Amino acid sequence: MAGGVGGAKLAYGLYRVCPPGSLTVVVNTGDDFEHLGLWISPDLDTVCYTLAELANPLTGWGLDGDSFAALHGLSVLGGPDWFQIGDRDLATHLERTRRLKMGQSLSQITRDFCRSWGVQAAVFPMSDQRVSTLVDTVDSGRLAFQEYFVHQQCRPVVSGFSFDGVDSAQPAPGVLDAISAASLIVICPSNPWVSIEPILQVRGIRAALRQKVVVAVSPIVGGKAIKGPAAKMYAEMGLKPSAETVARQYAELITGMVVDLEDREEADRLNRSGIISLVTQTVMRSPQNRCRLASEVVQFGESLLRRVTGS
Amino acid sequence: MAGGVGGAKLAYGLYRVCPPGSLTVVVNTGDDFEHLGLWISPDLDTVCYTLAELANPLTGWGLDGDSFAALHGLSVLGGPDWFQIGDRDLATHLERTRRLKMGQSLSQITRDFCRSWGVQAAVFPMSDQRVSTLVDTVDSGRLAFQEYFVHQQCRPVVSGFSFDGVDSAQPAPGVLDAISAASLIVICPSNPWVSIEPILQVRGIRAALRQKVVVAVSPIVGGKAIKGPAAKMYAEMGLKPSAETVARQYAELITGMVVDLEDREEADRLNRSGIISLVTQTVMRSPQNRCRLASEVVQFGESLLRRVTGS
Repeated sequence: MAGGVGGAKLAYGLYRVCPPGSLTVVVNTGDDFEHLGLWISPDLDTVCYTLAELANPLTGWGLDGDSFAALHGLSVLGGPDWFQIGDRDLATHLERTRRLKMGQSLSQITRDFCRSWGVQAAVFPMSDQRVSTLVDTVDSGRLAFQEYFVHQQCRPVVSGFSFDGVDSAQPAPGVLDAISAASLIVICPSNPWVSIEPILQVRGIRAALRQKVVVAVSPIVGGKAIKGPAAKMYAEMGLKPSAETVARQYAELITGMVVDLEDREEADRLNRSGIISLVTQTVMRSPQNRCRLASEVVQFGESLLRRVTGS
Repeated sequence: MAGGVGGAKLAYGLYRVCPPGSLTVVVNTGDDFEHLGLWISPDLDTVCYTLAELANPLTGWGLDGDSFAALHGLSVLGGPDWFQIGDRDLATHLERTRRLKMGQSLSQITRDFCRSWGVQAAVFPMSDQRVSTLVDTVDSGRLAFQEYFVHQQCRPVVSGFSFDGVDSAQPAPGVLDAISAASLIVICPSNPWVSIEPILQVRGIRAALRQKVVVAVSPIVGGKAIKGPAAKMYAEMGLKPSAETVARQYAELITGMVVDLEDREEADRLNRSGIISLVTQTVMRSPQNRCRLASEVVQFGESLLRRVTGS
């Protein structure tokens, strides 16, 4: 289960260390939105670009070496240039939008794109139906996610989240089967509020996960988010941003929790409360880090599996 | 009155040699089409890019120094990559499409774009309503213009043309006033069949032109089109491709005709039949050529005006 940049990094590690064809990534689409008439799926693209080794290593999103001539041209014309789209990235949005208008499903399109980009993992949108994350804010009312996240740069103080359309959204075809067939579920170090929660709210996904051994990797390290507004969101929601808080949020689902070396004391407390915790270096600054962390997560999961099955 | 590349070159010359603010260009929109969900106005863009000195000097269309990263990305995804769109050019189509969807008119958008690009001429689409040039072919039936022109590279043998929507299209606001106020009308060396005829068929434009001194510049030189399928079209329509044939086609409208040095004999015949002809170098291989031809056209027009008014 993954959102954007942080999730994609661990997904990449898992892709590299797991046997070919054994990885399925279920990706948040709550951030998806229409912009310039194009249907943009930021988390799906980040995951696919990352698995394909096409992602910009500096930002984590977008394409490595992409140019921004179209964005510049748009700016000259006074068009909406607040959302950074590279030229080659534009092709993804143009072609996805074209195919959606032809009636193809997002999961079909994602499968085709992955084939074109040489990605051999199964990458699924959480749903083929439109789900839109809305951010309730104290100062600016209810905001569309990208308005909050990109345009207002996460400045508004959040008071809650909702996922418009999630009540009628079905998991994309194959998602529940993949969960059911999986030996281990990993909740990637993505934002629990706006990257993981939308996936969990899609009908049937939470129930399917409850049947499995689930390991979550904390996106909070030393009380801070490695990237993005997760820590700020916890604080604004009246919660202490910490790996322990993340674990409590996932408590009903997870068997094990992976926390950073910095958060060793929190791990001790989690272990005492029955959430088995692995303490390791969780910050993925290099592709090697991603693979090392992925290996440790898989081994940890295997150890949990052995405990559960008593073997 | 102008179509794409050839028309834009003379329009550029006129823009340079006429007093600032005195030039109005009325541009064919029969070639406009929807592609990748974008509304593309090839002739309008070519005219605006050329006047703004942004056009690619090698092709005559597109933007100088533009990149093609999006087109390449589209190609990788198996998308429709037969229509060449540069990255910066994409911005024009994205922003035009966005504004059209907001309810702005093509003429308003074109005015705004011209301001952004520093174009001080008035550039009008022939109409704000959609008119679609259709090409009847012997071998492939009726084809949308870009299908014929770009995708099938003008290979099919033409038997006729129609302009879907032209019966209900109104001239864009300002077009009839500009014609009425003009001292001289120039029909640029654009394809008479598919660049000029659609303009002439928009309600009221032909009648307005009949009140004016009109000079046409032949797009056919030595029996050949300088660019594009005009000569091939004449031959397939059973007519000899020549400057004289072009003049006959425009006969009811024009006071004078500008033909190339190569076609001196045709000019003599035209003069004898009452169409006053200027013989000069009409091929515009450099910006200097454009300005020189434009000056000659304007002087020729002024001489015709003096004859008409008897002064």
